[in-house]
Amino acid sequence: MIATFVHIWVKEAHIDDFIAATIENHKQSVQEPGNLRFDMLRDAGNPAKFVLYEAYLSDEDAASHKSTAHYLKWRDQVADWMAQPRQGIRHEIVYPVEVSAW
Amino acid sequence: MIATFVHIWVKEAHIDDFIAATIENHKQSVQEPGNLRFDMLRDAGNPAKFVLYEAYLSDEDAASHKSTAHYLKWRDQVADWMAQPRQGIRHEIVYPVEVSAW
Repeated sequence: MIATFVHIWVKEAHIDDFIAATIENHKQSVQEPGNLRFDMLRDAGNPAKFVLYEAYLSDEDAASHKSTAHYLKWRDQVADWMAQPRQGIRHEIVYPVEVSAW
Repeated sequence: MIATFVHIWVKEAHIDDFIAATIENHKQSVQEPGNLRFDMLRDAGNPAKFVLYEAYLSDEDAASHKSTAHYLKWRDQVADWMAQPRQGIRHEIVYPVEVSAW
């Protein structure tokens, strides 16, 4: 199992656009086989800073996400709304280990 | 709803102790009313760096966690195993908004 924190800094003028596009991405992503989490979070101290917490059963499942139509649409939609490049930080899942707990 | 990333740097000699103590904390924490997430993650590039991803229904639920016996036990257990002070970063939950989706 693998989890990635995607740190995202959004241009202030496009925060609402970004949220709407990411909700659409969320709705499709959680339907993917192998998806465990797709939580959209906003820094309590910086309304233009977001984190997507994405977890998948396997590296292959995480990689497959990036070839889905909904991911590619989101990627293109948000490209001009980024205030700086996104940063994805990969993590191993230590616990829980049972898939049913996710 | 509120989510906190707790960034934790562990002394190498105590990584196994830290994992064992945190699994116990996890098992109790997910039983708390109001707990939505308590995921234990390890940086893929640094085996001594962990993140606890903790989400709660409300600020009050998150605050109550810190007065539970299992949290206080964990806090005392891990105190000498930290390589540097923990950093908790609070986030609002943007999506999903339905509690049933958590």
